[in-house]
Amino acid sequence: MAAIRAKLIRIRDNKLFEVFVISVIVLSGLVVGARTYSPDPSILRGLNVLDYLVTGFFLVEILIRMASERSLLAFFRKGWNTFDFLVVAVSLVPMGWAHSVMLARLLRIFRVLRLISFIPELRLLVNALVKALPRLGYVAIMMFVIFYIYGAVGSIAFRNINAELWGNISVAMLTLFRVATFEDWTDVMYETMDVYPLSWLYYVTFIFLAAFVFLNMVIGIILEVMQREHEQYDRQQAAEAVQDGVSPAAGSGEPPSRDVIARLDRIERLLEQRL
Amino acid sequence: MAAIRAKLIRIRDNKLFEVFVISVIVLSGLVVGARTYSPDPSILRGLNVLDYLVTGFFLVEILIRMASERSLLAFFRKGWNTFDFLVVAVSLVPMGWAHSVMLARLLRIFRVLRLISFIPELRLLVNALVKALPRLGYVAIMMFVIFYIYGAVGSIAFRNINAELWGNISVAMLTLFRVATFEDWTDVMYETMDVYPLSWLYYVTFIFLAAFVFLNMVIGIILEVMQREHEQYDRQQAAEAVQDGVSPAAGSGEPPSRDVIARLDRIERLLEQRL
Amino acid sequence: MAAIRAKLIRIRDNKLFEVFVISVIVLSGLVVGARTYSPDPSILRGLNVLDYLVTGFFLVEILIRMASERSLLAFFRKGWNTFDFLVVAVSLVPMGWAHSVMLARLLRIFRVLRLISFIPELRLLVNALVKALPRLGYVAIMMFVIFYIYGAVGSIAFRNINAELWGNISVAMLTLFRVATFEDWTDVMYETMDVYPLSWLYYVTFIFLAAFVFLNMVIGIILEVMQREHEQYDRQQAAEAVQDGVSPAAGSGEPPSRDVIARLDRIERLLEQRL
Amino acid sequence: MAAIRAKLIRIRDNKLFEVFVISVIVLSGLVVGARTYSPDPSILRGLNVLDYLVTGFFLVEILIRMASERSLLAFFRKGWNTFDFLVVAVSLVPMGWAHSVMLARLLRIFRVLRLISFIPELRLLVNALVKALPRLGYVAIMMFVIFYIYGAVGSIAFRNINAELWGNISVAMLTLFRVATFEDWTDVMYETMDVYPLSWLYYVTFIFLAAFVFLNMVIGIILEVMQREHEQYDRQQAAEAVQDGVSPAAGSGEPPSRDVIARLDRIERLLEQRL
Repeated sequence: MAAIRAKLIRIRDNKLFEVFVISVIVLSGLVVGARTYSPDPSILRGLNVLDYLVTGFFLVEILIRMASERSLLAFFRKGWNTFDFLVVAVSLVPMGWAHSVMLARLLRIFRVLRLISFIPELRLLVNALVKALPRLGYVAIMMFVIFYIYGAVGSIAFRNINAELWGNISVAMLTLFRVATFEDWTDVMYETMDVYPLSWLYYVTFIFLAAFVFLNMVIGIILEVMQREHEQYDRQQAAEAVQDGVSPAAGSGEPPSRDVIARLDRIERLLEQRL
Repeated sequence: MAAIRAKLIRIRDNKLFEVFVISVIVLSGLVVGARTYSPDPSILRGLNVLDYLVTGFFLVEILIRMASERSLLAFFRKGWNTFDFLVVAVSLVPMGWAHSVMLARLLRIFRVLRLISFIPELRLLVNALVKALPRLGYVAIMMFVIFYIYGAVGSIAFRNINAELWGNISVAMLTLFRVATFEDWTDVMYETMDVYPLSWLYYVTFIFLAAFVFLNMVIGIILEVMQREHEQYDRQQAAEAVQDGVSPAAGSGEPPSRDVIARLDRIERLLEQRL
Repeated sequence: MAAIRAKLIRIRDNKLFEVFVISVIVLSGLVVGARTYSPDPSILRGLNVLDYLVTGFFLVEILIRMASERSLLAFFRKGWNTFDFLVVAVSLVPMGWAHSVMLARLLRIFRVLRLISFIPELRLLVNALVKALPRLGYVAIMMFVIFYIYGAVGSIAFRNINAELWGNISVAMLTLFRVATFEDWTDVMYETMDVYPLSWLYYVTFIFLAAFVFLNMVIGIILEVMQREHEQYDRQQAAEAVQDGVSPAAGSGEPPSRDVIARLDRIERLLEQRL
Repeated sequence: MAAIRAKLIRIRDNKLFEVFVISVIVLSGLVVGARTYSPDPSILRGLNVLDYLVTGFFLVEILIRMASERSLLAFFRKGWNTFDFLVVAVSLVPMGWAHSVMLARLLRIFRVLRLISFIPELRLLVNALVKALPRLGYVAIMMFVIFYIYGAVGSIAFRNINAELWGNISVAMLTLFRVATFEDWTDVMYETMDVYPLSWLYYVTFIFLAAFVFLNMVIGIILEVMQREHEQYDRQQAAEAVQDGVSPAAGSGEPPSRDVIARLDRIERLLEQRL
């Protein structure tokens, strides 16, 4: 049993196997992409065969990785494993089910996401993005409050002017998102200005508010990322100092001064006592 | 009397009460939002009842907070309290007043703003935004001067081409704001280029100027925020140094060097005198 | 003569006089702005009178400032004085000249620019903007080369598709500026894609190149501004150190270490010699 | 032979010659530009003559530079030389070939690029831009994965709504690039919302994802550029310290502290031993 597992691990960690898996992932993406060109039946049949092969290979590959783990729990404890498992499981939905052909094809495209779970650098990137999200939580609430209030005001005041844009609060918020991206926002404004000539105030204040909060969010991310890099740099410096055989306290920026002063005090005392 | 106040304070600071207030604030927002879907009469009646309940609760809540304070003056001295009071007072405008139903509904939506005054993190965020505003004052004047001059030039030169866009200086400035957001600005330009073929210079220089000043403003905010964080960090470091039993002078970056040098001078003098 | 000059200087530097000048500048701006509302004749006559008064006042004010200076040369040596002089001189063009009423009115609007030359903070801001310009010179040349090459390619390849957009190289560059602001750029692209299906490559590469160079320019400005602030901070620190009675070498970040080491060397030598 | 080479090198490095080459480069650009104004035959003939002269001069100039080098290999080892050679070679395609007049004219415009290879500051700028590219590689892959998945989903789900925008995956990705630039993206959205009312989710999530990844890329570049500047600054500081006659270890930020501590230890030992 252990011998089989050792063999499986050897397969899993083989460099060539990794390259092969990445190729299959790319291939699976190309299969989905090629299908959108509505090829003629003979090619389509080839693509179907390729799809079966890819699906089969993914199934085998994930089973190898599950079996090479000590237990199923150990496998699922890693977030990216669960992610891979879901992607593979979901793409097992058979293409044949008349009703859900489109759904099955849609689900297959998510296999390209495995590229992210497979290339460590992309995984790091996604981790960093995800880590940046929670800090933005309060800014997001803030943004939502602004959109909600302006959306309510807009849908109450302008619904009779254009129900398609301002019919209810959710449609109004979508319209505001459009305004926030500057997308034909003057068309929206000129329409309401015919009825309420001062309604430009509504749009201009909204744009300023949204832009201002957005800007602060961006600056917030920049500062946070910089701080993280800074701390990492400090930690690295301290680690290097330790390696160089200097006490950690002496290695990082400010503490050495204190260290120096302590020694100077001792020297002074020595001199005063003995001279 | 004091016993009642103590009880009120206990209610006010109760964690569960806070969560309940937040829920009511969210509910009040949902009521306003639900209304924009023009529901059928029976649901509308329910929403009206809910609205009365919410209004009543807010009144009670603000009275509790006012009574729990030592005096009315102490209550109003806190900016956010005044803000809350105004929001609640304004939403007491009865819905029934035939003429101002829309106004009453609009005023009710501002109750969602209480979310900001209630969640400390959002309050901090707004404070930070407000604090960033004054520094931008001169850039805003600058921007206004640019808009005003270009607006005057535009309304003098182009008013006969399209009165709707360039009729007078305020309309022209709104048109320029549109140009600054790149919103269908070429439509505006091509129209005037038919009469004045060189008028593209007007638009291109305006876009460059506006973008350049805007950019400087953004950079200004970034730098200011960074500096503030820096100073805060320095203060923190100094505070930590004090806690560690080191003199504050020795705790922050540069002064220790001077401290070190002073001690070295003393040692040198000691050595020269006594040896 | 000197007595008169002293009196003129006293007028010029009087706080109240300054406020009055600023008010007149703002008023002159409002006069130009009010005119764009095409008011009825009676008000227009009032505006004309106001305009004469403002023009007269500006003339007197600039004469006072010229007379209060030691010589005309000393007056014109300051850039902002020359700027003021030009603005005032140019607005003396009489309104009556039938042919150039519009020109005279346009020139009058530039008097608002005196707001910038009069408020020190705005003057500083403009100085900073101007100082940032030269450094951007090479990026501007780079940008121009990109626009020129793409403009030539566009006007050669697409002129037969739409002469209005691609007729010659200057029109093509204006079209590219439009594409760079994302303004209805797909309309331009879809038109040429009908003839050259691969022409999307032209637009997408252009957008990427332009955005990339622009981004680098922005980052360049940010870095430069930061560096300047940094240096200013360092100089301040050094100045403070000098005031504190510490040698300048000891005051700024790194040199003190050298100072410290020099002193330690001396102490060591002292100890080794005399003990 | 060597005498000729020395003479050629003297020509090549002559300041006047350099200015002349730059003038010819600018002239060659102007010739291409002037041609786009479809001038009358007589001017066109003049432009043709100019073109021959410019082409001839470039040929001579590159031959001089090749001959002044020790060997052809040494010439081509420098990337910018190869670049120059290709540009000149390519512009030798004769204008006469009936079929490729347009091609020949297109190739001529690239001679303007020699401006970049000739002005050192522009060369530095391009080097910096190129150096920034590889680091962005993984973000680019990430971006491509997002575009690919959304493109596949879009072309599967929306192709029956508008084949021109969503016909196959590459067209869909171009449409998504358009959405990412906010270019009339609501027109695209409203069209699909008529069939799938919830399809706004597709667009809004795509915009957020794309903007978020793009933002991280920008921040990434900023941080990297800053770090590079920082390191350069550190190296400069160290170099200056060496020049000042201080050991390199003592010159840069942190090591001196260790140096100081080592010396203090020695002093302490001295004092303890001998007193």
